[in-house]
Amino acid sequence: MAKSGRSQRRTVEVRVELKPGVMDAEAASTARALEMLGIRGISGVRVAKIYELEISSGNSKEALRLASESVERLLANPVIHQVSIRELR
Amino acid sequence: MAKSGRSQRRTVEVRVELKPGVMDAEAASTARALEMLGIRGISGVRVAKIYELEISSGNSKEALRLASESVERLLANPVIHQVSIRELR
Repeated sequence: MAKSGRSQRRTVEVRVELKPGVMDAEAASTARALEMLGIRGISGVRVAKIYELEISSGNSKEALRLASESVERLLANPVIHQVSIRELR
Repeated sequence: MAKSGRSQRRTVEVRVELKPGVMDAEAASTARALEMLGIRGISGVRVAKIYELEISSGNSKEALRLASESVERLLANPVIHQVSIRELR
């Protein structure tokens, strides 16, 4: 039985967040809401979106390539987003 | 100069995601869109939201307590969400 090339389920995490300097309205309104609720001591909020992709692939490189293609074509906008991609398991 | 009780800036990460079994429309539509784009091999998508809170606090315990209060009062709905909280730095 051949070992190489056999498909295996891998989980790749894609983290998408706004680049520094891009106005983050959601973070700002979250910070404001916390203040209005009387929760003191929180001086800043940042938000990010995580996509965990289950990928059937024979190797890590191919799985990361598929994740990267998904980011480029759907998950992020390179003008405003920064992205990190890592294999979890 | 007293060392204890001095306020220090800490970063606490709050991760909010839907509980298993709760219908995740965003993940489902993301998976469908990837398929429609012709990106094959992705068998599942999960999404999560990250909040990074900058907290001025004298100790970790207090910072985590503030994050936990923020989750209970604003960031998550205990009926549908599961939450993990950890100090990053």
